[in-house]
Amino acid sequence: MEFPSKLIEDAVNEVAKLPGIGRKTALRLVLHLVKEKEDKTTALTEALQRLRTNIRFCATCHTISDESECTICRNPRRDHSIVCVVEESKDVMAIENTSQYTGIYHVLGGIISPIQGIGPAELTVDSLMTRISSGSKEIREVILALSPTMEGDTTAFYLHRRLKDFPIKITSIARGIPTGGDLEYADEITLGRSITARVLFS
Amino acid sequence: MEFPSKLIEDAVNEVAKLPGIGRKTALRLVLHLVKEKEDKTTALTEALQRLRTNIRFCATCHTISDESECTICRNPRRDHSIVCVVEESKDVMAIENTSQYTGIYHVLGGIISPIQGIGPAELTVDSLMTRISSGSKEIREVILALSPTMEGDTTAFYLHRRLKDFPIKITSIARGIPTGGDLEYADEITLGRSITARVLFS
Repeated sequence: MEFPSKLIEDAVNEVAKLPGIGRKTALRLVLHLVKEKEDKTTALTEALQRLRTNIRFCATCHTISDESECTICRNPRRDHSIVCVVEESKDVMAIENTSQYTGIYHVLGGIISPIQGIGPAELTVDSLMTRISSGSKEIREVILALSPTMEGDTTAFYLHRRLKDFPIKITSIARGIPTGGDLEYADEITLGRSITARVLFS
Repeated sequence: MEFPSKLIEDAVNEVAKLPGIGRKTALRLVLHLVKEKEDKTTALTEALQRLRTNIRFCATCHTISDESECTICRNPRRDHSIVCVVEESKDVMAIENTSQYTGIYHVLGGIISPIQGIGPAELTVDSLMTRISSGSKEIREVILALSPTMEGDTTAFYLHRRLKDFPIKITSIARGIPTGGDLEYADEITLGRSITARVLFS
């Protein structure tokens, strides 16, 4: 697509670098901004720039945070004896939105993936070990809440090996048929596991 | 959805104001920027801000332009005797991409819509009349390239009434079955018109 304006072209090129946004969508968004008042664009660019410049990561759990320690780690009403290990900050948000968890978190910052060259050293595994071995705050349980993929399982096995000699309970999120899911359309591994890992009806 | 960070929340709120972008997509885009290096975000925000601050509209045809006159109006090799009237700058880009048109344009900046309170005074109709009545550049033909909707037809009829006393040819883009379209799925008005407005086979 050709553009009559270099300014439009530059803006489209930048917007189209965002994930899931093609050049047609980028053009639509850019033309929308041109049509709106200038302060709308300024509000957008300032919010993005402010975010990127000022964002920090919690020194304890490594989740995205405005301060040096996140609101979850700072909250004395949370259960600091349970640590839920997740891949990314967005997983923390997803679990927080369920309102089912009152413990604290540990964000690995990725997942072990030999293909992408990501090993334990690229993740916050050492920080997790330090949190558990330093007895300042007694941790009783570690929940491994990783994606049920090859990489997620690899990471979970690795963490289990590192953690198994500590006097803590190591658990994993339940796998099975999702609520609202149809047995007919569930894949064989999920359905098979949901039968072998059946639970008492309550 | 709750966010652990005010910075994230502000950025998501701004991004979600863009058309077709919901809060989930906004969060995905924002977290992508946080993961990337800061200069990526700076490149994006600067391109958008530079666009919005510096963008101008061609003094002649009102299309989006980097200069006071657009590259199309300035081009002496274009046919300045044919003016194609369109609703928005994006229509100019769409027609330019066909490489089938060598004339110049006139961007109305909208379409007559009594429901939205947009009348001829809100559009660049007077500027079009000035272009045609000032004999400095002889205009021989005006092509009405408006959307085949109620508003588009209303605007076309209005412009035809204003233009019909000038010694110019007034044409309209062809309507019919789109290339690759299936007769079976064409709506009745389109199919009916494509029969009454049939053309010699060539």
